[in-house]
Amino acid sequence: MKTINSTPKADGFRMPAEWEQHQGCVMIFPERADSWQYGGYAARRAFCEVAGAIAQSESVTVCASDNQYENARRMMPDSVRVVEMSSNDAWARDYAPTFVTNGSEIRGINWGFNAWGGLVDGLYFPWDKDNKMAMKLCDLFNTDMYDFGSFILEGGSIHVDGEGTCITTEACLLSAGRNPDLSKTEIENYLRECLNVNKIIWLKNGIFCDETNQHVDNICAFVKPAEVVLAWTDDQNDPQYEYSRSCLEILENSTDARGRWITVHKLRLPAPVTITAEECAGLDTMNFKPTRIPGERLAASYVNFYISNGAVIMPFFGDPADIPARDLLAELFPERKIIPIMARDILIGGGNIHCITQQIPL
Amino acid sequence: MKTINSTPKADGFRMPAEWEQHQGCVMIFPERADSWQYGGYAARRAFCEVAGAIAQSESVTVCASDNQYENARRMMPDSVRVVEMSSNDAWARDYAPTFVTNGSEIRGINWGFNAWGGLVDGLYFPWDKDNKMAMKLCDLFNTDMYDFGSFILEGGSIHVDGEGTCITTEACLLSAGRNPDLSKTEIENYLRECLNVNKIIWLKNGIFCDETNQHVDNICAFVKPAEVVLAWTDDQNDPQYEYSRSCLEILENSTDARGRWITVHKLRLPAPVTITAEECAGLDTMNFKPTRIPGERLAASYVNFYISNGAVIMPFFGDPADIPARDLLAELFPERKIIPIMARDILIGGGNIHCITQQIPL
Repeated sequence: MKTINSTPKADGFRMPAEWEQHQGCVMIFPERADSWQYGGYAARRAFCEVAGAIAQSESVTVCASDNQYENARRMMPDSVRVVEMSSNDAWARDYAPTFVTNGSEIRGINWGFNAWGGLVDGLYFPWDKDNKMAMKLCDLFNTDMYDFGSFILEGGSIHVDGEGTCITTEACLLSAGRNPDLSKTEIENYLRECLNVNKIIWLKNGIFCDETNQHVDNICAFVKPAEVVLAWTDDQNDPQYEYSRSCLEILENSTDARGRWITVHKLRLPAPVTITAEECAGLDTMNFKPTRIPGERLAASYVNFYISNGAVIMPFFGDPADIPARDLLAELFPERKIIPIMARDILIGGGNIHCITQQIPL
Repeated sequence: MKTINSTPKADGFRMPAEWEQHQGCVMIFPERADSWQYGGYAARRAFCEVAGAIAQSESVTVCASDNQYENARRMMPDSVRVVEMSSNDAWARDYAPTFVTNGSEIRGINWGFNAWGGLVDGLYFPWDKDNKMAMKLCDLFNTDMYDFGSFILEGGSIHVDGEGTCITTEACLLSAGRNPDLSKTEIENYLRECLNVNKIIWLKNGIFCDETNQHVDNICAFVKPAEVVLAWTDDQNDPQYEYSRSCLEILENSTDARGRWITVHKLRLPAPVTITAEECAGLDTMNFKPTRIPGERLAASYVNFYISNGAVIMPFFGDPADIPARDLLAELFPERKIIPIMARDILIGGGNIHCITQQIPL
């Protein structure tokens, strides 16, 4: 593995859209007991379902700690590769490399990671093992690496169409805990150089109560060039309403990098999902404080799906909105199977299916 | 990765000879301070030279602990892949899988590993991480696995010609610390079924002071079908003389699996190599005792070379015998480059170049 001291744009590499062909997907086996109930037992079953669903159409590599390697190997389908790799938690989207391609070679980008806000409003400490994963994964997959470790960014905070457009949120990228010394223009320049995009659409907010400072991948995702799904509620009393409405307005008044107006499909949210006292009892404390309190609202959203080569793996919440959400995705991805996974045990950790996966382009 | 409940022989798989084409080689980054001087610093430089030499003609994967990953990545050539994998020490030959092939697919064998003798005369405790490596490596390389974990064997204790013949030593395979409940015939049967051989040549001993209970890979190695090199001394006062003489007698009176008489090339040993007081001072103690004492004889032997696709990587000891040893190997491997590595810092750990490498056939 070689570290490359230029930028993807300078070298003619770009981040492809998620629907372009993958060689595979990376996930991380969950184990931290202050993120996941019962030391991870419940979440691990859900992660295995996600891995199995993805493995139907592309190869899946699951990273597990030395301690959890045997459990991961036993629980995961044979078709999934399990490798030992240390991490602080299990969010492959956010700290696996963002891969870029020039059509014949892929390379990884190592962004800096500080647990979604570092000492300002980060979610745990330390985050050193997470932050080393991008390099280790480039090494594992034999790709060279662009090192942008001094720029803090999580993979879940960006979405691209592979044709020059990036969508992100101000709430996250302009947060005080990431790159406070960089102007919005300077941050844009990182995205332009690294993702090789020339149009960045800035949404203001993401999902209410999303503790990542409102990653875009929970509120809005490209489904094809110039078409997105947007998490939506019709309940004007829900704080989410104003967030989503603002996104809609921005998107409907935006063109993409190629000058196309953007079509927005409203993907209606489930009724607010809150954590129960029993679920909270299954979580360890952090710094002598509970990590969740009973009744706390979780950032449930159907937008947090993963597009594999043959399927769209989407979260279900046991809510009546599950079915219309599935039907909309089926309509938008007619050539892919829609695979729903009951995702409450992933959601409790603070994210969902897109957050725990990272595609590796061909 | 799937675990297969039959035997390689039953499935038509065999262990190829080391000179057959490899897809690559596995090594482990050394770090334990009671095996390697100065917490591994000296050995790591030598391991990097070995990896670099092998990487000239086949891909090399080096396993490093999370703690050492960054050091390994920095020190190893870019062409070498470094992956995180926990181990108790750095002997890839002995606990990486033995790979078998049917010509179109390879599979790994997981032998049981107990640190060269378990609680009887093993060299360290515990050995749990080493013992998991074969499974992890099969997973990493996407090969299915034969699980013979209940049978204790190290890769360094066997050599094959790929044509049905195995050479091993009684001192090791019949030792009290490995499979004391199995008869010699039962042990032979494991070798027959797992390696798919039908002739086993039993040498009595290996190299004097070899703390592996005298692995064959330090005393005798196939260089082509029906031809071996044998570590040799002409000094009749050296205890090694009787060991080597006995091997010679056995080999010269043996035919291989195909009925061919075996040609033996004497590969003359360096003068006895002993560890200095200064070198001992660089080693941590184990169980409150020194791991080496000044003047202790080390098991130096030129037989402990690795055959890569394009080269033979052999140890040098700074002894006049280095040159004739190199010349003999050059004569026996006319199509391969001979790459000598000053190997004293590997030898101090208790083995040599063959011990720290494991080939993966095509």
